[in-house]
Amino acid sequence: MGAVTEADRAPKQDRSRVTRQRLLEAAVACLAEHGWAGSTVSVVAERAGVSRGAAQHHFRTREELFTAAVEYVAEERSAALRGLFPTAPRGGRGTTPRGGRRAAGADRTAVVAALVDLYTGPLFRAALQLWVAASNEEQLSPRVAELEARVGRETHRIAVELLGADERGPGVRETVQGLLDMARGLGLANLLTDDGARRERVVAQWGRLVDEALG
Amino acid sequence: MGAVTEADRAPKQDRSRVTRQRLLEAAVACLAEHGWAGSTVSVVAERAGVSRGAAQHHFRTREELFTAAVEYVAEERSAALRGLFPTAPRGGRGTTPRGGRRAAGADRTAVVAALVDLYTGPLFRAALQLWVAASNEEQLSPRVAELEARVGRETHRIAVELLGADERGPGVRETVQGLLDMARGLGLANLLTDDGARRERVVAQWGRLVDEALG
Repeated sequence: MGAVTEADRAPKQDRSRVTRQRLLEAAVACLAEHGWAGSTVSVVAERAGVSRGAAQHHFRTREELFTAAVEYVAEERSAALRGLFPTAPRGGRGTTPRGGRRAAGADRTAVVAALVDLYTGPLFRAALQLWVAASNEEQLSPRVAELEARVGRETHRIAVELLGADERGPGVRETVQGLLDMARGLGLANLLTDDGARRERVVAQWGRLVDEALG
Repeated sequence: MGAVTEADRAPKQDRSRVTRQRLLEAAVACLAEHGWAGSTVSVVAERAGVSRGAAQHHFRTREELFTAAVEYVAEERSAALRGLFPTAPRGGRGTTPRGGRRAAGADRTAVVAALVDLYTGPLFRAALQLWVAASNEEQLSPRVAELEARVGRETHRIAVELLGADERGPGVRETVQGLLDMARGLGLANLLTDDGARRERVVAQWGRLVDEALG
């Protein structure tokens, strides 16, 4: 083998990144469909069309693969959510101009709906499988608790920002937190049956309540 | 063996009822601690101090035992919740006397806290294990979906009653539903870490918001 040039290295890094991404996406889909018990590195490698050895090169353990997968997809979804509302006011500064309140209110219902959407897809199903498995497995528990806290903080930050909430006001922080708890509960209600019609009505009403509470 | 008299029969029925109850309570505890994978009829029978044969006399299958257990404990908890607020107004009739609103409001915060408590103990952990297992097991799924719907309707009925909510008003039904979704989400947030301090603040704030929304 001759010397590795810059030109050789770049595509190799790209390939490695693509392989990693395929493994992470396959891991989330696998977890959502088959649960923790049915999710192994081998199953994911096969689903991703990657050799078991290559998968283990990227992720040493099963725990590492699946927590990385949930985190990766959560980051992707957060970025997509921010992308949906590129002009949303930055929260926590109280800089919303007077008279702009009504427009912000109209947006808020859409923001609430988009936040709830975070909890009804395969990512939530996968995360739920991981949480529940972690509650019975000591090896998994601290890692998943830490992941959940990190993802939760980031989701809260996005919610505050997109809702234009000023967290210095009394109760504002808890209003937003309760909204995200409700979104999580709606995700759970959607696990076994299609809860879409009921969810839409609840989201419309809670969108109004949150909008009023945030003023 | 002589003829079975009434006096013989009654204690036998009592013993059978006690055995059944012990099995159901052991099943919920087992599910909460070890998850679906670690929950079998044998494990529960041993935990309850009952022979495997006696357990199978009461419950033919593993699915039957665990869904019956979650339903039994849910009913016990519903009865206990109603018992906590024996003087709560009956909802849906709009008969709350004028001037009684403030007192009802004070009660509502306590009702919201008690409703949320339904979702933070071993029953919720057990139900969650069952839901998540059902989402990956066709044999379990319809049975658990049906159970969830039944328990959910009953919890909603109790919530409406204890909150003195008049569901004929616009958005009232969805306000209560969203509150129960929030309670479920708070239960999930408590799965891996003790979320009690944060939960208390969220419950205080949303107790106020729900009270205002219900008027």
